Amino acid sequence: MSKIIFDCAVSLDGFFAGDNRGPENPMGNVAHLIHSWMFKQKAFWQHLGMDGGEEYGADSKLIEAVFARTGAYIMGKRMFEEGEVAWPEDLFKADVFVLTREKREPWVQKGTTTFYFINDGIESALEKAQQAAKGKDVRIQGGANTIQQYLNAGLVDEFFIHTAPVFLGSGIRLFEGIDANKYDLEIMEVIPSDLTTHVRYKLKKK
Amino acid sequence: MSKIIFDCAVSLDGFFAGDNRGPENPMGNVAHLIHSWMFKQKAFWQHLGMDGGEEYGADSKLIEAVFARTGAYIMGKRMFEEGEVAWPEDLFKADVFVLTREKREPWVQKGTTTFYFINDGIESALEKAQQAAKGKDVRIQGGANTIQQYLNAGLVDEFFIHTAPVFLGSGIRLFEGIDANKYDLEIMEVIPSDLTTHVRYKLKKK
Repeated sequence: MSKIIFDCAVSLDGFFAGDNRGPENPMGNVAHLIHSWMFKQKAFWQHLGMDGGEEYGADSKLIEAVFARTGAYIMGKRMFEEGEVAWPEDLFKADVFVLTREKREPWVQKGTTTFYFINDGIESALEKAQQAAKGKDVRIQGGANTIQQYLNAGLVDEFFIHTAPVFLGSGIRLFEGIDANKYDLEIMEVIPSDLTTHVRYKLKKK
Repeated sequence: MSKIIFDCAVSLDGFFAGDNRGPENPMGNVAHLIHSWMFKQKAFWQHLGMDGGEEYGADSKLIEAVFARTGAYIMGKRMFEEGEVAWPEDLFKADVFVLTREKREPWVQKGTTTFYFINDGIESALEKAQQAAKGKDVRIQGGANTIQQYLNAGLVDEFFIHTAPVFLGSGIRLFEGIDANKYDLEIMEVIPSDLTTHVRYKLKKK
């Protein structure tokens, strides 16, 4: 059955992004610190149609697995605006639903990525993403605030956290203001690595 | 060589304790949520001289290992005041150095636990603890603020984090205001468990 998931890297002190995020400063310039495990993987660069990276076993398989299972993406307006100017074309290879107040025609990229701009809330975006995903999973891509909204609405089934061995000290936390009474959590899988610690959780609504 | 360590359980959203901590409400009443893996271990109850718990393999060995390697403890005044009224006698079975402004004679408990009250700062407490530890490690027991002080002073060699599959939503974070430029971190060990995720880190000063 199609699931609603997210899959994020964070610093050891829980930050999803650094300070002063914006289109001129994607992720607050901390991607090299918390995503370094991913940038080392051949699977990541292959997905972009580029050379680079090495094979790292378990770490590499995780990247292929999450791309393979995802049929549509949802993201917040700020993440989209940061990425719009920086991402290579056809990064997502699926439909992407952007939560925004902006009225805008779909942006059809070369390849199979189309961005749709959704003005009527997170549940409407989810419904459209589930239709687009055709039985595959819907991934809440980010940013942190968008993930928090879906979590606190009780809409997430499963997530993967990749905790990098680094302190950021400040920035935007992934888990800020999470409703503690919404779910029971279960550890599904732990994948040790010298690069980052991968843990998959299952959520059951209380 | 004797190391300076800490060893803490946290919630998945990074909280070390709940809200409204105090002697009447130790840990903000969240111990059963973030320490449940420990309360299930026979090794924990044996250390207290009590019956209870089950054998859980890797989880159980972690408890024995940290007690065995620790020769002295350091803790903050708030943690001590919470514990003073609640802990069983001779819990630590070693010298414990309490950071406080209070002038007070050492509190010698039955058994081998003695609390010393240190008025002249974290480095003085560390020096005394290192002497008392006689070649074993010094454990910064907590609370979060005391651990943050030792971390940001560049004095910690190694730590173990046990991340429980639970959200608290609010409380006192273990990693708040950590100096990001102090250390390079390395993952030493990951111990998967269905109860909690155990990760050991080594710190090298930059």
